[in-house]
Amino acid sequence: MSLIITKATLGRLPVYLDFLKKQNTEYISSTQIARALELGEVLVRKDLNSVCGLGKPKVGYDREKLIESILNTLGVDKNISAVIAGAGKLGSALLGYNGFSEYGVDIKAAFDNDPKKINHTFANGKRIYSMDSLKEYCEQNDIRIGIIAVPQSEAQAVCDKMIECNIRAIWNLTTYSLVIPDNVIVKNENLALSLSFLKTCMLRNEGTTRPVR
Amino acid sequence: MSLIITKATLGRLPVYLDFLKKQNTEYISSTQIARALELGEVLVRKDLNSVCGLGKPKVGYDREKLIESILNTLGVDKNISAVIAGAGKLGSALLGYNGFSEYGVDIKAAFDNDPKKINHTFANGKRIYSMDSLKEYCEQNDIRIGIIAVPQSEAQAVCDKMIECNIRAIWNLTTYSLVIPDNVIVKNENLALSLSFLKTCMLRNEGTTRPVR
Repeated sequence: MSLIITKATLGRLPVYLDFLKKQNTEYISSTQIARALELGEVLVRKDLNSVCGLGKPKVGYDREKLIESILNTLGVDKNISAVIAGAGKLGSALLGYNGFSEYGVDIKAAFDNDPKKINHTFANGKRIYSMDSLKEYCEQNDIRIGIIAVPQSEAQAVCDKMIECNIRAIWNLTTYSLVIPDNVIVKNENLALSLSFLKTCMLRNEGTTRPVR
Repeated sequence: MSLIITKATLGRLPVYLDFLKKQNTEYISSTQIARALELGEVLVRKDLNSVCGLGKPKVGYDREKLIESILNTLGVDKNISAVIAGAGKLGSALLGYNGFSEYGVDIKAAFDNDPKKINHTFANGKRIYSMDSLKEYCEQNDIRIGIIAVPQSEAQAVCDKMIECNIRAIWNLTTYSLVIPDNVIVKNENLALSLSFLKTCMLRNEGTTRPVR
């Protein structure tokens, strides 16, 4: 079992998980999984080896144990609390979305400066608080992840504030390049850029722009 | 000038663009850009070479020409129309977001099956139509990109419908693995997985789970 797991493997784990949960055999081989999911056999073997070691010769993996290893690797058992700064359309959409809890992330609340938004409660019971109460809230609720969904011009100030609140992992949904200390992780999620990349690939397919790798 | 451009380079182009637009010199060198943006000099030189060839010895790049090359590479001058299937929270957030037009993508409308949502018009004038009118709308408005923001169980049916509507580029915001013909491009955007990846990296930093590469 390797000590390092690639992002690509991590990305396929939910697909394996979904498939494995639907089966009812005691053992399952990487070949069976590869065929059912239309993935390469070598790829599947490598992925599963990196989360669960090699299967038993001839029979493959103990299905229950494999499911458990995948859940462990995803860290689903470790629940982490997050908050969103910025309760605009995107921030509100994320606060209302329940799919994050499947991965063990609970987005507990949003914070905004707009008095018209403050104290609004969503259908799922989650609430928008004043940005002034961010520090207190983070301390009381063991907040570990900060999600930045404010306008680009406010992104750095909000990021600095989150770091003051002891948040060490930031999901940046703005296009602003945040300046952060070494002990903080940032994942930039530029949706406009992602869509623009799809467009560039499409134009390339048509031969109207240069190839993208 | 290389014929292929990497996704990583493409991702940095908006950062260069933003910086270049704010300068007022006729020429600018890759070293100056690297220093100002705190990026590696070799990296910047490689990025700029792939969009604009090498700069002039000693003076660097003609700033205006470099801006033009970046815009061309991003395909910003080529306007493409898109539609969203699914007018839930995420679909509505994307329809209301104006940042996509900067990259030359115009999300024109959303489509939904829910009679309560159909005919709703957003503040920016964009509208939700019945899914039944998707084909007619796509034909009349030269729609090239389809965005899927429906529940996972409906994703494949919506994708098939988009392909019938002659859409050849799909941005999949569900976690469903779409089955598509060879001549269609899909970009999967799994936000829950992206956030989960940040969480896994954070846990690794703390030494509670295995390293991720």
